[in-house]
Amino acid sequence: MKEYFIHEALKEAKRSLLLNEVPVGAVIVKDNKIIARAHNLRETMQDATAHAEVLAIKEACVILNSWRLTGCDMYVTLEPCPMCAGAILQSRISKLYIGIFDPSVGACGSVINVIQNDDLNHWTEINWLYNEECGNLLTDFFKDKR
Amino acid sequence: MKEYFIHEALKEAKRSLLLNEVPVGAVIVKDNKIIARAHNLRETMQDATAHAEVLAIKEACVILNSWRLTGCDMYVTLEPCPMCAGAILQSRISKLYIGIFDPSVGACGSVINVIQNDDLNHWTEINWLYNEECGNLLTDFFKDKR
Repeated sequence: MKEYFIHEALKEAKRSLLLNEVPVGAVIVKDNKIIARAHNLRETMQDATAHAEVLAIKEACVILNSWRLTGCDMYVTLEPCPMCAGAILQSRISKLYIGIFDPSVGACGSVINVIQNDDLNHWTEINWLYNEECGNLLTDFFKDKR
Repeated sequence: MKEYFIHEALKEAKRSLLLNEVPVGAVIVKDNKIIARAHNLRETMQDATAHAEVLAIKEACVILNSWRLTGCDMYVTLEPCPMCAGAILQSRISKLYIGIFDPSVGACGSVINVIQNDDLNHWTEINWLYNEECGNLLTDFFKDKR
């Protein structure tokens, strides 16, 4: 199932690409079903908080009518930034599956660790998928930009 | 002006209190004018991301029609959590004025430092106001809860 869900997150990332947005996608899964899906829309929405993870969390909260996403898993193509990692903690998402690491602002251990920090009041399980396609999508996007 | 703006953020925090929400308020200031204001609405909205800072940032982005809040300052009654500190970085807010520190999840140095971390790609100026009323509001709220 892991392969299927990260593939669905990749489909979301490709929607960002069509909008000339940094291609990152996320899905939230509960009981083996996708309950929310989103892609980065920062430029389109002109909203600094409109990363895929935040948008997916907001959608899942509406669907479940609860700010607590306990028992939900998130699949995201790129390692979350501090804002998104913080939002994942706030929402109590149980497990996080990450396509590829982000050496620039990754907040799940690459640059800083918000998700698994014993000094904070919550902690989320991280599963690294080392998915090449998630990385290639970003590399190609930034190569085209230069 | 600092005293005036943190007082306005406190007014927002008191609105949270009326809704039985953890009392935290924030205002965003540009050219000495408040352009956005918000208070914590997590329970009311059942949205894990509905902290005062995130809501104020989203509002300011709409007002300015830009995800970049460069040249804007935020006044917030309580030290931001990792999610909100990350959102402040993402929005490129120039200066952050904080009422009181949060020894529980403060991400501006108390528990973790997201706002001023040389390994991340952005950095925001922090001004601590050590405002007693900001702290008392929270202490009284949690005292009543116990």
